[in-house]
Amino acid sequence: MEINYQNIKVIGFDADDTLWVNETYFREAEIEFGKLLSQYETPNKIDQELFKMEINNLPLYGYGVKAFTLSMVESALELSNYNLSSKTIEAILNIGKHMLNKPVELLDGVEDVLKSLSTKYRLILATKGDLLDQERKLEKSGLTDYFHHIEVLSDKKEDNYSKLLNHLDIKPSEFLMIGNSLKSDVLPLIHIKAHAIHVPFHTTWAHEQVTEEETNGKNYKTIKSLRALLQLLN
Amino acid sequence: MEINYQNIKVIGFDADDTLWVNETYFREAEIEFGKLLSQYETPNKIDQELFKMEINNLPLYGYGVKAFTLSMVESALELSNYNLSSKTIEAILNIGKHMLNKPVELLDGVEDVLKSLSTKYRLILATKGDLLDQERKLEKSGLTDYFHHIEVLSDKKEDNYSKLLNHLDIKPSEFLMIGNSLKSDVLPLIHIKAHAIHVPFHTTWAHEQVTEEETNGKNYKTIKSLRALLQLLN
Repeated sequence: MEINYQNIKVIGFDADDTLWVNETYFREAEIEFGKLLSQYETPNKIDQELFKMEINNLPLYGYGVKAFTLSMVESALELSNYNLSSKTIEAILNIGKHMLNKPVELLDGVEDVLKSLSTKYRLILATKGDLLDQERKLEKSGLTDYFHHIEVLSDKKEDNYSKLLNHLDIKPSEFLMIGNSLKSDVLPLIHIKAHAIHVPFHTTWAHEQVTEEETNGKNYKTIKSLRALLQLLN
Repeated sequence: MEINYQNIKVIGFDADDTLWVNETYFREAEIEFGKLLSQYETPNKIDQELFKMEINNLPLYGYGVKAFTLSMVESALELSNYNLSSKTIEAILNIGKHMLNKPVELLDGVEDVLKSLSTKYRLILATKGDLLDQERKLEKSGLTDYFHHIEVLSDKKEDNYSKLLNHLDIKPSEFLMIGNSLKSDVLPLIHIKAHAIHVPFHTTWAHEQVTEEETNGKNYKTIKSLRALLQLLN
């Protein structure tokens, strides 16, 4: 089915793994964490326990590196059966700090696409990480001037997007969201009758994965690289 | 000097210690933390070291309970000279979780004032905590319907407020900020020629304190309770 983007006024871009590399750094951190605790469990078991801890803590801590760091500490306590050394705790805190200090590595075509689209649409950054961390990454990325502002959402569900559209004073049909996560950046938008375009990243966090049943018959496009937006929207 | 509030279109309310109790919970957490580490140092020294750690970590972690919890863990490692037990780490994580689960205790007159002002002005919540935590507190407070939306700022400096006004599409003279912190809710607004009203709370975090020199001659009002807004603005 042909999708008509002619009414679009505002385009929301997801940030992590849509504009720049992020999930890769979480995977690296998990490997580092596994090594720190290798005397207690297998890497696979450590991964599983950390993931469970993150999901358990999600309602309380939300998303982002600080939440992840706190869950690593708590998970390490349990995995070690409360025999953790202070040096290991310090090393875990340093994994988190290291993530917050990572350079920003832009994905292919990002700057060209934003430069072109920003002349025709209002662009916003719509992310669910920590505000400070996302502001810092935007600053480092050199992309600040293309965006009207940053919207940090505590989650990316239908209700969060409805509030956002309300706040932006636009109709669902006037909003297009672009991002790598079907669960967070695409499906909730389709459900509230806004537009969405999916740009997959090679790695997806388990929590963001969806079944084929959920995407079946849903009216969105998938593109291989952000560059393809220029044909769709110009 | 008489201040004219006639052009005000949007009123920003700080949340913590302006609408509801917050700093009190941080003070209680610090006392709890001091007790946990009492075998290593005096309460006073522990307070000082934790404060230093928070300030050191501020550029990386920002504000809020998760940042505070991570700083408590790091500070405890140092204070114990890296001899911390896993049970103490767990107890520190629990101090943070306990803070996130606290009930919301509204300050005097809050609901009456918001109810009245929301019929005449657009009200927004402007805070620098964690978004998720602030959304949860707003939900618990029962005040959601009085606010157009929440603005979480990574800091409350002149530049952050200028961006906010830009985003709200209003002039500085059309914005009034109300809050308990001279440093964060009042002075930066006066400097960008917006309006501000100070409502002191009985406890102020050391990082938020300002000198008399900084407030001297600045054009803002101080009121004892939010209730006084009804005379000033109606």
